[in-house]
Amino acid sequence: MDAYEILKSKGISIGDKIRVNSIEGILMPRTEFVESDVIVIKMSNGYNIGIKLKEETEVKLIEKKEGLVLEKPKTKRFDSNKPTVSILACGGTIASRVEYKTGAVFPSFSPEELIEAFPEIGEIANIKARKLFDLFSEDMQPEHWKIIAQEVAKEIESGVDGIVLMHGTDTMHYTSAALGFMLQDLPIPVILVGAQRSSDRGSSDNRINLVSAVLFAAMGEIAEVVVCMHESSNDDYCAIHRGTKVRKMHASRRDAFKSINISPLARVNYFERRIEYLTTNFKKRDKSRKLKLDTNINPNVGIFYFHPGAKPEFLREMGKFYEGIVIAATGLGHVGVNSGNDKLAKSFLPVIKELIEKGIPIVFAPQTIYGRLNMNVYSTGRILEKAGVIGNLCDWTIETALVKLMFVLGHTKDMNEIKKMMLTNIVGEISERSEHEL
Amino acid sequence: MDAYEILKSKGISIGDKIRVNSIEGILMPRTEFVESDVIVIKMSNGYNIGIKLKEETEVKLIEKKEGLVLEKPKTKRFDSNKPTVSILACGGTIASRVEYKTGAVFPSFSPEELIEAFPEIGEIANIKARKLFDLFSEDMQPEHWKIIAQEVAKEIESGVDGIVLMHGTDTMHYTSAALGFMLQDLPIPVILVGAQRSSDRGSSDNRINLVSAVLFAAMGEIAEVVVCMHESSNDDYCAIHRGTKVRKMHASRRDAFKSINISPLARVNYFERRIEYLTTNFKKRDKSRKLKLDTNINPNVGIFYFHPGAKPEFLREMGKFYEGIVIAATGLGHVGVNSGNDKLAKSFLPVIKELIEKGIPIVFAPQTIYGRLNMNVYSTGRILEKAGVIGNLCDWTIETALVKLMFVLGHTKDMNEIKKMMLTNIVGEISERSEHEL
Repeated sequence: MDAYEILKSKGISIGDKIRVNSIEGILMPRTEFVESDVIVIKMSNGYNIGIKLKEETEVKLIEKKEGLVLEKPKTKRFDSNKPTVSILACGGTIASRVEYKTGAVFPSFSPEELIEAFPEIGEIANIKARKLFDLFSEDMQPEHWKIIAQEVAKEIESGVDGIVLMHGTDTMHYTSAALGFMLQDLPIPVILVGAQRSSDRGSSDNRINLVSAVLFAAMGEIAEVVVCMHESSNDDYCAIHRGTKVRKMHASRRDAFKSINISPLARVNYFERRIEYLTTNFKKRDKSRKLKLDTNINPNVGIFYFHPGAKPEFLREMGKFYEGIVIAATGLGHVGVNSGNDKLAKSFLPVIKELIEKGIPIVFAPQTIYGRLNMNVYSTGRILEKAGVIGNLCDWTIETALVKLMFVLGHTKDMNEIKKMMLTNIVGEISERSEHEL
Repeated sequence: MDAYEILKSKGISIGDKIRVNSIEGILMPRTEFVESDVIVIKMSNGYNIGIKLKEETEVKLIEKKEGLVLEKPKTKRFDSNKPTVSILACGGTIASRVEYKTGAVFPSFSPEELIEAFPEIGEIANIKARKLFDLFSEDMQPEHWKIIAQEVAKEIESGVDGIVLMHGTDTMHYTSAALGFMLQDLPIPVILVGAQRSSDRGSSDNRINLVSAVLFAAMGEIAEVVVCMHESSNDDYCAIHRGTKVRKMHASRRDAFKSINISPLARVNYFERRIEYLTTNFKKRDKSRKLKLDTNINPNVGIFYFHPGAKPEFLREMGKFYEGIVIAATGLGHVGVNSGNDKLAKSFLPVIKELIEKGIPIVFAPQTIYGRLNMNVYSTGRILEKAGVIGNLCDWTIETALVKLMFVLGHTKDMNEIKKMMLTNIVGEISERSEHEL
């Protein structure tokens, strides 16, 4: 028995007040209630909650509301004129309706549930959907990135036209960078999407972000790993950011995601369902291209954030915990080397040399977030570059440098090879010098 | 004998080609060559270099250029109708003309040398100038902040109308935040200023930044520690940023400094020598106000940058190196606590509890840079707040959180007191909720 049959057997219709386990509320209509065992109840606090019905679930009619009928679910048909988009759910705010507020968990992500919530996506494409995990993004680990990459590869194998990954926003840019390295030579777009505000809030960005992401997956020309999120705090455009060049730059704003050191690749006009390209510098969709799936990474990389008072001996200690270290360096790529022999200053140079000698690569990324390292300008930079620090002339974010070093260390332990791979632009993570630097 | 007398004794005039030690070039005119033993030579590579002349210095006339006279230095007089500004040099690009390129060091910062280089500042104010250090800002330590604060207090004691600190840009925002806490109830403005490009480059920002800083020190109404740097990449305005709310946000751009989560306090129109105030929310100049100098800090604080793959056991190890830890947390204030019991995820909760139990405060700051922590929204935040993490509803930068924790730990070791002081807005480091958060 599916949910329809269970409800029907109890004489329950849409609009009735019912109790399921200990939750009481009004049974809500669901437009395409197919292959699904989930019902939606509006609770007295105004929240909607989805509940999975099993045959043994206690369902009780509390109050009959006459006039509304429980419709038999329509079977949704595959439309061969439409593109097909796979939606894989990894967790996060976009993938949850009420759980963060009530503790209740929306149980699954069938295509029908998504289309019921966001009918526009069913108009744009045939939707395939399934859940990979149900994680807060701060719980996401490098091992999860591998699983996501493998599942994306399976979906590509199945012949879909685009893939949407629903993901928490906190670490979305780490995941998008990792997938960039793991999924090279993509034939179709892979789009990460999230929401900064949950769907029970009027200001939620989930609909516009998800619909725009599905639109881009179905029709977009950019066969790369990208992030699709609100472009401004207006509900009109979403920006499409390169996965290795994007960063969450605000704790709460809906337009928190910004391309760093390049412009976004494209924007999606939500109302007009139209894509505008902002550059031609991207890999074009080509379903005949053969995906290069490469999940070899070494997650044993840490970040050292340099600051006044930071201790060289603590950096040394990091070498016992990690096989590679990214240093968030100041300005053009500096940490204290005390070239002026000041009696209060500390030099990090001996420890950096020692770590590199031990085979632990030291990679710099700009603490300023924006801009490009240039270790040729000041003597401090030149001294550090000569000592073997990797990163001169790179404009990657701290996060992308971290993920790239994990990827590179998954391929080689040879320091020369590490340096060569790090300084080679693999998937757009190092950008050409541009007007943004003036 | 001063430089004038040494040159005169050898029959050398302005425009002559001379050799000093091994450096050859043209002797340049200096408009106010008073109390100074420094001469300026233009070398064949186009760079100007300042050289300190002693009686034993080898000075040789190479080629005579007729027509220009070596003027006897004019004695500069104190003008009682003008405000008086103290300039204290701490190092950095603004305080150096050629040293980073040639290795040669410009030896001192007498008022005359500054006025010779930037005559506008002598028109604005009587200038007092001296050098505190000659440091790259990445070598600046918390102990240096104390010295700067003490020297600023001495200048205030002497009755000046404003103080300008020339400082390297890389860690300028750490210093400005530290001075904010150390110099409370300021009677006059204290302005940090730097340059992103050295004076031997056509695009140097040193003149506009320094003149604007001196103007603000002389006439500005904001008696706080502020940073004065280019507002945009045009050479027209400088922005005046609150010292606890500013951050270097670009490795190389001249408008690298941005106010975070508030607007700049004011802007200086360089050409019109005019100050525009952008808010009324600041402490006004009042020479009768009694400065509260408080240099008690505990520099034993470190930064942990949370990321996928970060190790709880490494955070535990930090507790052996530091007495307080700032965690750059994701989103609204999250690190993994694995509330979903995922088999790959890691929880930082036990280690955080353990460190707090040991008396090591854990302070969160937003890794996003922009925005405000809100640990009430998601269960992860609530769990961490309950465990004793400090920072809920704060919108400070990682750097200001670090400096404030150093300051607070210089005053108390009691965890309740630490939490109370941290969450109290002392000098504008925690801003009111604003339109920037929408």
